[in-house]
Amino acid sequence: MNEFMRAAIEEARAGQAEGGIPIGSVLELDGRIAGRGHNRRVQRGSAILHAEMDAIESAGRLRAADYRRATLYTTLSPCDMCSGTALLYGIPRIVIGESRTFRGPEAYLRSRGVVLETDASAEAECYRLLQAFIRANPSLWDEDIGR
Amino acid sequence: MNEFMRAAIEEARAGQAEGGIPIGSVLELDGRIAGRGHNRRVQRGSAILHAEMDAIESAGRLRAADYRRATLYTTLSPCDMCSGTALLYGIPRIVIGESRTFRGPEAYLRSRGVVLETDASAEAECYRLLQAFIRANPSLWDEDIGR
Repeated sequence: MNEFMRAAIEEARAGQAEGGIPIGSVLELDGRIAGRGHNRRVQRGSAILHAEMDAIESAGRLRAADYRRATLYTTLSPCDMCSGTALLYGIPRIVIGESRTFRGPEAYLRSRGVVLETDASAEAECYRLLQAFIRANPSLWDEDIGR
Repeated sequence: MNEFMRAAIEEARAGQAEGGIPIGSVLELDGRIAGRGHNRRVQRGSAILHAEMDAIESAGRLRAADYRRATLYTTLSPCDMCSGTALLYGIPRIVIGESRTFRGPEAYLRSRGVVLETDASAEAECYRLLQAFIRANPSLWDEDIGR
C-alpha cells in the first residue's frame, strides 16, 4: 500500500484511540499530503466531520486547479456528503480502502467522471478496524450514516 | 415569506457584515429552528462550511428520525456538497431562495426523492444580496463553487 493510504489508516487508528469512529482520510496533492483527518462525530459532536471532510478542511482553502490534481484517499467508501464534496471541488480520483461495510454512491461518482479505485492491500485492515468498532457501537455507526 | 427563510436571509446578512459570502441557511424541525448558519469560507478559512453545512453542524448530532422530519432552508440552491449532506441524512425537503446565481444538482436531488421548493417571496432579495458580493469579489465566489 502506498504512503497515502497508510496515512489514512493511521488517521483511522488515531480516531479509534480517541474513542471515535475509525475512518481516516488523506488529500494527496503533487505527491504530498495536503490534508489529513478522521471522523470527529464523537470527539467534537460533529454531524459533518466525516474523515474525508476533516481531511479536506485541514487542507485549507485551495485553488480549483489544485483540487483538480488531487487524489482523496479514504479507508471507507465515501457517503453522499463526502462524495458531493469531491464533486464540488472536482477532485478527479478517489482511492478507497473498503466498500464492504458501507458503499456510497460510487456509480453516481463514476457517472460524473470521478475515477474510483480500491486499494486491495488495505481492504482487510480497513474492514476489520471498522467492523470491530461497529460491533461495540452499533447505534453510533447508524447515526454516522444517517440510519 | 415564513420565519425560517427570513432567518436564513438574516444569516446571509450576518455573513455579509463579517465580510463573508452572503449565503444563509436554517434547519427547521417541528416548527422550530434546530440549526442556523452562514458561509464561513472567509471568516474561518473553511473549505466545507457552506451555509447549509454550518446550519446542520450547529444543530448538533440529531437522530435519523429527526432529520427525516426536517426542512432545510437556504438562500441559494445547494451545491453538490450540501445536496449530498441532505441525502446522507435523508432530509426530505429543501426550500431555496434563489437558483439564478447558481444551480446545484436539483434534478439529482429530486431523483433521490427530495422535495425542492423555491420561495418566490425571497428570490429577489437573496439574488441581489449575493450578486452584489460577487461583483465585488468574483474570485472568492469562484473559489466557493470550486471554479
